[in-house]
Amino acid sequence: MTTIHGYSPSGNCHKLRLLLEQLGRPYRWIETDSSRGETRTPQYLALNPNGKVPMLVREDGGVLVESNAILYYLAEGSAFLSDDPWMRAQALSWMFFEQYSHEPFIAVGRFICGWTPLDSPRRVELPWLRERGHQALAVMERHLAAHEWFSGPRYGVADIALYAYTGVAEDGGFDLAPYPALRAWLGRVRATPGFLPMPPPAPENAALIAASR
Amino acid sequence: MTTIHGYSPSGNCHKLRLLLEQLGRPYRWIETDSSRGETRTPQYLALNPNGKVPMLVREDGGVLVESNAILYYLAEGSAFLSDDPWMRAQALSWMFFEQYSHEPFIAVGRFICGWTPLDSPRRVELPWLRERGHQALAVMERHLAAHEWFSGPRYGVADIALYAYTGVAEDGGFDLAPYPALRAWLGRVRATPGFLPMPPPAPENAALIAASR
Repeated sequence: MTTIHGYSPSGNCHKLRLLLEQLGRPYRWIETDSSRGETRTPQYLALNPNGKVPMLVREDGGVLVESNAILYYLAEGSAFLSDDPWMRAQALSWMFFEQYSHEPFIAVGRFICGWTPLDSPRRVELPWLRERGHQALAVMERHLAAHEWFSGPRYGVADIALYAYTGVAEDGGFDLAPYPALRAWLGRVRATPGFLPMPPPAPENAALIAASR
Repeated sequence: MTTIHGYSPSGNCHKLRLLLEQLGRPYRWIETDSSRGETRTPQYLALNPNGKVPMLVREDGGVLVESNAILYYLAEGSAFLSDDPWMRAQALSWMFFEQYSHEPFIAVGRFICGWTPLDSPRRVELPWLRERGHQALAVMERHLAAHEWFSGPRYGVADIALYAYTGVAEDGGFDLAPYPALRAWLGRVRATPGFLPMPPPAPENAALIAASR
């Protein structure tokens, strides 16, 4: 059986759980709290020298890292990834957009709000992260004004990749009110068969998020 | 014929030129200087709302953005991308690593050295960018101690993606002396058939790079 090493409140990890649930594929989940150094142990670094979650381990011991590469691999041959090379490339394009132009601002902003103390020096980064995050949300809004999904004609891997942190962007202080098409898309994703919401953060993280508002 | 909008001294753009040359495939190149705002014109933003190079435009007008998604698309069916789903996923994994853990530090460090004035306030970012960039180089070194390539058993798209900015990392003040396996891999990439080096930066950028040393 496929094993996923993941931290449940991480959007990058939740991507894989959501796809595996929607595929109806059995998997083993090993909770690995990256916020407490569990991806920096010698045992973990031997499998993933980059020291991050999520990580997929096959029954034969083969290791695959990087959330969106894992999504793409798990979705091969399913309805969540087109067979058409051009459509696949468009989905990949949005997945690279997510990792370069979206996650480093929206996920990192959420992390600072919920996983660092209220007096953390990192909080000075928030205005800049919000500015850049809103640029990404505006690019998504523009696409969604003319398209139903990011993965092509159907819901798929690029929607899952972008949903992960957009769905919890408000935790990082991102107001989604200016993006009606994006909010409608969030609703469509949540209505897909087998949709599973991200588990709520632990009470101490939820308290920090609330105090950051 | 495929058209590429690209800025020649950009590693992200050079990836595509290098692959197209090695594929022996004809293409049209439209020089687009992102450092002078040419990706922020209304005409350009209508094609790519994210306002970046490179951008591929097909003869039928179809647009594809994100350098590594374009690389993957162009390499489909060639010797530069495996047919095996696991090997393809491993190549993609390194391409996501490149965009998340490598390019934002190594390419941005080079940009600050060569494309911002010597008194730019952005230069305070350099020590931190170098620290994070060296972490990425160390991950690459560890892989290369046991593997010849990043794309699987043969040179391919992941090598091209990682070569782009690693090959010019010294422009950003990254000393490659501590990475012998990485330096040997740079040599192997440069010895592949049809290899094309990145054109040198314009004289004013080369002067800034030299003055940053």
